[in-house]
Amino acid sequence: MIGVLSCSKIDLRGIYGPHFDALAPELDLRLPGEIDRPEDVSFMVTFVPAPDAFTRYPNLRAIYSVGAGIDAIMACPSLPPGVPIHRVEDPDQALQMAGFATFHVLWHHRNMGNLLANQKIGHWERQLTGLSPRARRIGVLGFGLMGRAVARALVALGYPVASYSRSAPKPPEDGVTHYRDGAFDDFLAQSDILINVLPLTDQTKGLLGAENLAKLPNGAALIHLGRGGQVDEAALVDALDRGHLSGASLDVFEAEPLPAGHPLWHHPKVFVTPHVASICEPKATVLSIRRNQLQSEPMTA
Amino acid sequence: MIGVLSCSKIDLRGIYGPHFDALAPELDLRLPGEIDRPEDVSFMVTFVPAPDAFTRYPNLRAIYSVGAGIDAIMACPSLPPGVPIHRVEDPDQALQMAGFATFHVLWHHRNMGNLLANQKIGHWERQLTGLSPRARRIGVLGFGLMGRAVARALVALGYPVASYSRSAPKPPEDGVTHYRDGAFDDFLAQSDILINVLPLTDQTKGLLGAENLAKLPNGAALIHLGRGGQVDEAALVDALDRGHLSGASLDVFEAEPLPAGHPLWHHPKVFVTPHVASICEPKATVLSIRRNQLQSEPMTA
Repeated sequence: MIGVLSCSKIDLRGIYGPHFDALAPELDLRLPGEIDRPEDVSFMVTFVPAPDAFTRYPNLRAIYSVGAGIDAIMACPSLPPGVPIHRVEDPDQALQMAGFATFHVLWHHRNMGNLLANQKIGHWERQLTGLSPRARRIGVLGFGLMGRAVARALVALGYPVASYSRSAPKPPEDGVTHYRDGAFDDFLAQSDILINVLPLTDQTKGLLGAENLAKLPNGAALIHLGRGGQVDEAALVDALDRGHLSGASLDVFEAEPLPAGHPLWHHPKVFVTPHVASICEPKATVLSIRRNQLQSEPMTA
Repeated sequence: MIGVLSCSKIDLRGIYGPHFDALAPELDLRLPGEIDRPEDVSFMVTFVPAPDAFTRYPNLRAIYSVGAGIDAIMACPSLPPGVPIHRVEDPDQALQMAGFATFHVLWHHRNMGNLLANQKIGHWERQLTGLSPRARRIGVLGFGLMGRAVARALVALGYPVASYSRSAPKPPEDGVTHYRDGAFDDFLAQSDILINVLPLTDQTKGLLGAENLAKLPNGAALIHLGRGGQVDEAALVDALDRGHLSGASLDVFEAEPLPAGHPLWHHPKVFVTPHVASICEPKATVLSIRRNQLQSEPMTA
């Protein structure tokens, strides 16, 4: 089966070529200039397609995004209707995200920053109330592969976990209470620790602004692992300073790298990390595309 | 059914009495002086029994320890043979322990201390290798209720998990490779992060000294949540200073509170916490005893 590597922004052949050769020899991946019979091309691998990227290929049956976000593909004027767009799903990346999120849940729930500060001054002070996970309600915002992995780990640790996504998850996830479209406020109101792993879309841009942050319970913490642009950083700092929120962990920002002197860098209630929660490795991307292609276009002998 | 509260060290009635009254009205709990017919006493609740604590009660069918360690009961000269000794098992305490252990696994695996240090100086540096949990092997030392909860959470997060205990765990735990008696060295040699949740016994005292710490892989980390006395602290500091170990998280110590000026307080590779990983609440203790008693001596109408 023949696929085309087509991107206006990054060198797909350079990054993914060797991995396709090694791991997916069944797939014949070519650059647009290497294709004589465009009607034989059945799938495209892309990140940011040029405006006319899709016009030449009348028989596309699948489009693969090498990024988790597919906004650029959706906005492409030549995108053919009815062709499924696959985001890469990397189970390992989801587990990395789950570990990172779990760490920060414990960081806030168990006051680990306070314990570190006490260690620094050699102060032994045992705080033994509120240790149970049962009384700390977690909200997972975004419930694809990553949200599910996050939820699963926290259920295993005994936390009450709720999820929110626009459509009901199929299959449902054991031990997780799901809030559907229309119940977003209820979901926020019960999230003592809110974990955001949403992709960036028109709908999620600016989602966590002053108004929605105010709907979290008093003393809630925010763990923001989605995309910069979803959280209004000024509103967040304000909610922390007023004491409405007790803390935040942020891995993504409106501007990355986070600019020098930005108030988030040195806010005493904020744990800043430089967009390192998880990565999707090229190998996993290639294996994911291969798996999908072999399922949808089984090889004939 | 009648039980006796018998302890030479702590005021069991004062601590547990109100909870028995509220949560376990089926159980008739009395102090030794309140018992007219010792032959009617079918169970004892104790922590440190006096030497002759058991002599009066010929029909004991169960002994409950309110502590996790049962060394004092085992050493009591009047302990009747063949009567089962129950340690309190608190599922919530096990989950607290699992969360605490999981936090420290991520702390070491994902270099969270380094990220915090970078935040302090406003330095954005992305380290994106080694994020996968798959390449970090976890060893869980001690595999009762707590060890199992720890293992379960880490399996959910994608870590390869091995356990060690003297007898094979029944039932086996999904996704966990078990090392039995005789394979301790092999277990240590594969533990990139070793989590100790063993109880203190003659066998576990001093278990993690220079010799066994040396058997861990180069660059390993130790998470010590068992009991002070199991780890040779001087040997640990030496292993850290020589670079054989990359880090340690310690919640329990040879002397508690950890003395002022102790080298562990300010060791750059050590996270010190003041014995706060988990607690067993009196309520949970009472409910655990009640559950067991109603199972072993069902009420008749």
